[in-house]
Amino acid sequence: MADYAKIIEELEGIAVEDNPALVKQKSRDFYWYSPILKEELDNVVGDLVVSPTTEEEVIRVLKVAYAHGVPVTPRGGGTGNYGQAMPLSGGIVLNLINMNKVKEILPGRVICEPGIIISELDRQTKVHSGQELRFHPSTKQTASVAGFIAGGSGGVGSITWGGLRDLGNILRLRVVTMEAEPRVLELSAWDLQKVSHAYGTNGIITEVEMPLAPAYDWVDVIVGYDEFMDAVKFADALSHKNGILLKEVAPIAAPIPFDYFTRHKPWLKEGQSVVVLMVAPHSMEPFLALAERMKGDVRFRSDQVESMKGIPHAYELTWNHTTLRALKLDTNITYLQVQYPGPDHVEKVRVMTELFPDEVIGHLEFIKFDGQIQCAGLPLVRYTTKERLEEIISIHEENGCPIFNPHRYTLEEGGMKQTDQVQLAFKKETDPKGLLNPGKMIAWENPDFDFSAGKNYLFPGLEVFAEAGE
Amino acid sequence: MADYAKIIEELEGIAVEDNPALVKQKSRDFYWYSPILKEELDNVVGDLVVSPTTEEEVIRVLKVAYAHGVPVTPRGGGTGNYGQAMPLSGGIVLNLINMNKVKEILPGRVICEPGIIISELDRQTKVHSGQELRFHPSTKQTASVAGFIAGGSGGVGSITWGGLRDLGNILRLRVVTMEAEPRVLELSAWDLQKVSHAYGTNGIITEVEMPLAPAYDWVDVIVGYDEFMDAVKFADALSHKNGILLKEVAPIAAPIPFDYFTRHKPWLKEGQSVVVLMVAPHSMEPFLALAERMKGDVRFRSDQVESMKGIPHAYELTWNHTTLRALKLDTNITYLQVQYPGPDHVEKVRVMTELFPDEVIGHLEFIKFDGQIQCAGLPLVRYTTKERLEEIISIHEENGCPIFNPHRYTLEEGGMKQTDQVQLAFKKETDPKGLLNPGKMIAWENPDFDFSAGKNYLFPGLEVFAEAGE
Repeated sequence: MADYAKIIEELEGIAVEDNPALVKQKSRDFYWYSPILKEELDNVVGDLVVSPTTEEEVIRVLKVAYAHGVPVTPRGGGTGNYGQAMPLSGGIVLNLINMNKVKEILPGRVICEPGIIISELDRQTKVHSGQELRFHPSTKQTASVAGFIAGGSGGVGSITWGGLRDLGNILRLRVVTMEAEPRVLELSAWDLQKVSHAYGTNGIITEVEMPLAPAYDWVDVIVGYDEFMDAVKFADALSHKNGILLKEVAPIAAPIPFDYFTRHKPWLKEGQSVVVLMVAPHSMEPFLALAERMKGDVRFRSDQVESMKGIPHAYELTWNHTTLRALKLDTNITYLQVQYPGPDHVEKVRVMTELFPDEVIGHLEFIKFDGQIQCAGLPLVRYTTKERLEEIISIHEENGCPIFNPHRYTLEEGGMKQTDQVQLAFKKETDPKGLLNPGKMIAWENPDFDFSAGKNYLFPGLEVFAEAGE
Repeated sequence: MADYAKIIEELEGIAVEDNPALVKQKSRDFYWYSPILKEELDNVVGDLVVSPTTEEEVIRVLKVAYAHGVPVTPRGGGTGNYGQAMPLSGGIVLNLINMNKVKEILPGRVICEPGIIISELDRQTKVHSGQELRFHPSTKQTASVAGFIAGGSGGVGSITWGGLRDLGNILRLRVVTMEAEPRVLELSAWDLQKVSHAYGTNGIITEVEMPLAPAYDWVDVIVGYDEFMDAVKFADALSHKNGILLKEVAPIAAPIPFDYFTRHKPWLKEGQSVVVLMVAPHSMEPFLALAERMKGDVRFRSDQVESMKGIPHAYELTWNHTTLRALKLDTNITYLQVQYPGPDHVEKVRVMTELFPDEVIGHLEFIKFDGQIQCAGLPLVRYTTKERLEEIISIHEENGCPIFNPHRYTLEEGGMKQTDQVQLAFKKETDPKGLLNPGKMIAWENPDFDFSAGKNYLFPGLEVFAEAGE
């Protein structure tokens, strides 16, 4: 057991919290979205929350932690869904939320600290010069920018710009290494793959440079269709229109909208599926012309309601927020993350939709993938057993629809199901003792793990918490 | 013969020009790009140039012309290549270049008069709020915005936004009809198809509302490759990168660049093909990372030359300017307009390139077409005979590469080779006497014309000029 009294002493001048209730609060994220992760991670808790305000303080924390051999798990807004920010080996939770300054805003780019909340960042760049991030998660109001980079992949705006993995969608990251003498590295272009979407396992992000797009007063629109597949076809046709500027296109099947979008209920029609959209104001007229031609029932327009007070933003009906709204009202709901590779993505959706009537309920997000319009899915699943969930996953994969499993806490099992050699090599360089966010990178913990054997990885470190919870 | 003395009298207060040399000058465009059109249209000349400054004056001119049964051919900067602005039946050339005011600039849109030069429009919207048109022709410095709408199809920026035909890329047009009492119509959304790319045959555009995109200080870049197909593959891969913001991507085969891009010669390498590019400043770093990985030889960067004085913009090496630069130095050159439908557009380019070594020299423009990356071509052709040119066209079409023939002055033969029923119906409504830009719409002049018979349309009105020219 590490000597936390000594550690606290050595961190003098830096905000530290060891009150167990508060530490527990900062040791969790939205892992409970998954009934499986809820069971596995429910007792996970750190020993200390440390909240640096400068890069110098981050360096001091890492130096002390390294000397004491204490794990460090970085944390932003704690809006991840897979335990990204949860300290699977205890130790220090590095809360970066107070490093929240915007340093410079330029045409097409912003430089800022890692912990700034995305909606605040967008507010400042919009006021400064009518700009905003290219895309953001549905948790924009509570997620930090570096948390999004380290734990997310895309979101609202991906219909135009693709994902965080795409060259040019992150411009530069400053990263501090976990060594006796921590180094500060500047990464750009291809090198960004070393740390983006690595859950903070191989460096602590202390500065971020992101590209900006023009900020418009996006109009929230909900278009209804009696048949889900008609909603999907409209979304697909619309997404292919070069001249109509969109930020969000999400077909969502009945009964989700009417049952779970409580604040929008007055505008919705029972039994209808919908497409939730964000449309640039100057594209509204052509957008409505297309919706009319494709027999869409325009139910809601934020530019025509008297007041948006009390009504969530359209993006807060989409991506992970769709699931969140369902979970609030029905705890038997869970979800999957599905890829429907194009160009026959619409047909794949049709086949999958027909295979699981009432059990898997459609929720798609149209995105750009390698320059082509495609869709990803975050369908809701009426959860019965682990086994049935695995079966649903297998059937999707057999039908050419890969699953990014949101019921796993490791990078590999939630992602490509193989070792990311670039990230592994970088971790060896930046975190030789393996103290950064332990348990998240299988390639580090168990290099011989066989991904094809069909067994889940179980991080041995979790046993401590299992005992504690008993 | 119309009574032009009387017409001039009735147009009192409106600028009128009947000096034959000046009228002749305003009766031509860049028709001489085509050796065939040069022969056919060389003697075409109007009777009078009228230059209104307001919509009221346009209405007066049309009313007088209608009463006298005199044709009216609208004209902007005269930068068309197919005789769009040439008065094939003589009459009035309606010069709209003095209607050049910007009326309103809003986020994402501008409202202006038809005759404003595009570079001046972009200058004003950039100064006002950092905005510019989504795309423009390579003749930006001399073309008018309504001339582009009436006679163009796309251009620099089409890699992101597609073409003028795409819903949302023109927002609204005000159009005056050619009737005893001219009406003013407002067209938007689907109705825009009635008048855009109609050469002014069915209404005179008096006001334009266009969408705007953010204006960046685009960096001109030229990347060299020893093999043309390597340049094409780089252009294709780059265009598919979601996160790299581009405005222009044009692969151009050797020997065009070194032989014809005179002002850029100090940076070019003999024998190399190139890709001419415009890259957003904040996308330069990821762009260069990709170029390096794909072994591109970055020859020129406008952000690294001491001064751009005397060096043309990158866009003035592309689209029709590529041909123009060749023609200045080699009058035996002409060109084609080719479509290479995706997704196998790169392979189609390869096949066509190999079929005509040294005779057809590759020039591609990457564009977005129905949401997908594709390429169009404006290859140079070493011209020998009309017959050989027709043969080259046929071989392209047999290989699945449709030709938009730039050696024809009619809408149909330059375009889809079929009657545009929407435009024809609208012309019946707005120009019952057929006085607007006669000779350009075959469907109007000869409804029974058989497009499949393989014969070119010859406008009978041209006979007058043929005699005059003898």
